[in-house]
Amino acid sequence: MTPQNGRPLATLPEVQKERPRPTIERTKGTTQILAARAGNLTPEIVYVAKRENVSPDLVRDEVARGRCVIPANHHHAALEPMGIGIKLTVKVNANIGNSAVSSGLEGELKKLHTCVHYGADTAMDLSTGKSLDEIRQAIIDASPIPIGTVPIYQVIEEFGPFDWGIKDFLGVIEKQAKQGVDYMTLHAGVLRDHLPLVGNRITGIVSRGGSITAAWIKRHGKENPLWESWGEVCEILRAHDVTVSAGDGLRPGCLADASDAAQFAELDALGELTPKTWDAGCQIMIEGPGHVPFNQIAMNVERQQRVCREAPFYVLGPLVTDAAPGYDHITSCIGATAAGTAGAAYLCYVTPMEHLGLPEEQDVRDGIIAYRIAAHASDIAKGHPGARQRDDDLSRARAMFLWEKQFSLSLDPERARELHARGGVSTHSDFCSMCGPHFCSMKIGKDNGLFQP
Amino acid sequence: MTPQNGRPLATLPEVQKERPRPTIERTKGTTQILAARAGNLTPEIVYVAKRENVSPDLVRDEVARGRCVIPANHHHAALEPMGIGIKLTVKVNANIGNSAVSSGLEGELKKLHTCVHYGADTAMDLSTGKSLDEIRQAIIDASPIPIGTVPIYQVIEEFGPFDWGIKDFLGVIEKQAKQGVDYMTLHAGVLRDHLPLVGNRITGIVSRGGSITAAWIKRHGKENPLWESWGEVCEILRAHDVTVSAGDGLRPGCLADASDAAQFAELDALGELTPKTWDAGCQIMIEGPGHVPFNQIAMNVERQQRVCREAPFYVLGPLVTDAAPGYDHITSCIGATAAGTAGAAYLCYVTPMEHLGLPEEQDVRDGIIAYRIAAHASDIAKGHPGARQRDDDLSRARAMFLWEKQFSLSLDPERARELHARGGVSTHSDFCSMCGPHFCSMKIGKDNGLFQP
Repeated sequence: MTPQNGRPLATLPEVQKERPRPTIERTKGTTQILAARAGNLTPEIVYVAKRENVSPDLVRDEVARGRCVIPANHHHAALEPMGIGIKLTVKVNANIGNSAVSSGLEGELKKLHTCVHYGADTAMDLSTGKSLDEIRQAIIDASPIPIGTVPIYQVIEEFGPFDWGIKDFLGVIEKQAKQGVDYMTLHAGVLRDHLPLVGNRITGIVSRGGSITAAWIKRHGKENPLWESWGEVCEILRAHDVTVSAGDGLRPGCLADASDAAQFAELDALGELTPKTWDAGCQIMIEGPGHVPFNQIAMNVERQQRVCREAPFYVLGPLVTDAAPGYDHITSCIGATAAGTAGAAYLCYVTPMEHLGLPEEQDVRDGIIAYRIAAHASDIAKGHPGARQRDDDLSRARAMFLWEKQFSLSLDPERARELHARGGVSTHSDFCSMCGPHFCSMKIGKDNGLFQP
Repeated sequence: MTPQNGRPLATLPEVQKERPRPTIERTKGTTQILAARAGNLTPEIVYVAKRENVSPDLVRDEVARGRCVIPANHHHAALEPMGIGIKLTVKVNANIGNSAVSSGLEGELKKLHTCVHYGADTAMDLSTGKSLDEIRQAIIDASPIPIGTVPIYQVIEEFGPFDWGIKDFLGVIEKQAKQGVDYMTLHAGVLRDHLPLVGNRITGIVSRGGSITAAWIKRHGKENPLWESWGEVCEILRAHDVTVSAGDGLRPGCLADASDAAQFAELDALGELTPKTWDAGCQIMIEGPGHVPFNQIAMNVERQQRVCREAPFYVLGPLVTDAAPGYDHITSCIGATAAGTAGAAYLCYVTPMEHLGLPEEQDVRDGIIAYRIAAHASDIAKGHPGARQRDDDLSRARAMFLWEKQFSLSLDPERARELHARGGVSTHSDFCSMCGPHFCSMKIGKDNGLFQP
């Protein structure tokens, strides 16, 4: 397995030995947004600018105004910092994590390796089974990419689904922050007033954290404790520079529920949280749907940008049809491309197993590549500087029948090589098994002097 | 294998026996467009209206103005007529056909069966090897869906790549028309003046028919013979009601070549051919790209509609990045959704083997389902009446944990069932292996009275 072009190194110990990581001096004692607002170029800002081939001043200015986040916990020593924002390339998240019946530590490290190898920019550890702290620490220690979590999963493992209070929750947040978690999904915008709005939906609440939070509010007859204690939450996050990923607990779970009152009421709440979070010296991005008809996607992105003052939008898909279980990496990467083109900065992948079961390694690969396609197509559509270079180089190699060069420039070289080999035609031939030697259009064009690549 | 909801029956003899085909009286002696212009409701128009759940008058009016085609050769007895146009659901084409090294008659019938089974609306026989006439006749005799061909492939098999004249070409068109071919790709818009425009492209000409036509023009120093003899071409097509699929011989083969002078010069030529074809009493649709950045797709559709007076647009993808060989069913179904939403009526599928080799059965399945997703998502995005019903029904079944109902409503029930089974959870459970019994958001929502599907 070779690392992807310009991507971080893979994470298994035997791979790490092959090529040492770059040494990156790390910020302590402040957050990226506070440093940027003070006009400082942190080592992380400089590193991100170099990776993105933009000026450090641009990254600093974007971080300062909250339009870019650099999820980089002080304690995550293995991190190669990366940025998420509309002025940078669109990023892709992959989910890992064990469940009550699954793999444990070694299995999770293998999954992390798969994510990094196929080019995920970040990974979320969604573990819900045993040994949560141990697995999380191992993942953080091994990971060159930012690691996110959903703390409420640990809260309910430790205290049961509804028998916890804000102090318990803050304790879990602090423990994870000290371990080095770079960003945390917090469903702080699910409010008491919103609950009646989901009653007539077809699929109700489809966010795990959202449904637990809503049920907690209903059972206790109180307001969302994270919303009530947001200042204390931010205090902990600021001490370690954990980025907020404001969860969309009421995201639509089907097309019929998309863009409804519940979804937008929660978005408005997140719009209130955003400047509070910035004022507390923390970074924040906003999570979004979910399931949305293709023609409503750009509207959703524009609305989030307006309501949340351009804080980066982190979308899950969205799926553009509910009718293709088994293919939801495809139904959703269509929506992700529309979202990325409209300005979403960050795409959470969906695998073919969505709605059906827990993904396996091949599903993770399929999901990541589908989303790298969506992210890259969005960069091109937005006219991101240099984004199309890879396509042009690959197309030139294609027209010159430089097969190995085509493979090495592709998003999944192993897959391209494997499928080509299936056709049984040598990589030194000036044709492929699709059209054969006499019917290749590019060969005919070149042989007849119509063009020369 | 069970037939797809509301789709034609499969085509293998043993399947045909299971359920007889509907008997459809067929038009003779005129064409759909001439009959519609005379105000007649042909049996094909009535059948299409019933399938699409719209009024026969609407279909007739759309056919009369050329905005809808019904490819239905008089001699194609097994056909279950279908319509292609912006007022109907978006349609999907799959390609089959043997090559010098491939399957022969039985193999091609098996491929046709695969296409029909997974829900392709039409199929093109792109055979280029031996026994062309015999294979084509067998396909037409067995097919309930319209069959298209690219006659130039047979012309050059019979006469060599450049040693043919217009009489040879007309002979092949007539032979295929008499066999019952429903629509033919004819590269009549590749003109002498266009050739210099491809000289500086990265991938030159990527249409097989386009490159042969261009090389013929250059070698003979003459204008495109189909362009010159379009009246004679239409005379043959009209006698059997073969629909023209105006080939885009100069379609871009990479993002860098998209929306360039060569592409639009050919489109202008097709814009001239369109009313000539209508005046000759024939139906016509227009083929389009290919490889187009996501942000240029709607513009391409709008331009085609304007230049070609709303004749149905039949697009190949388009691919929104060149950088993912092995995944071009995905790179292209993203573009196909954008095109369908913008008004393209008909989507030609692309398989994962595109650019790498000849597709096998699994590739055909992957390509068809990706394109049915694109077509269906487009119908929903366009607000096509009733299009979202299937999604709503499936989502309701999902919220009620009616697994078998979910599977039966999916675009590929076998795949959904297979992936769910992999998770090892019974189809009688009110959860899946993704979140397990304690973490299902919809279960939590229902158990706590937050919603009731």
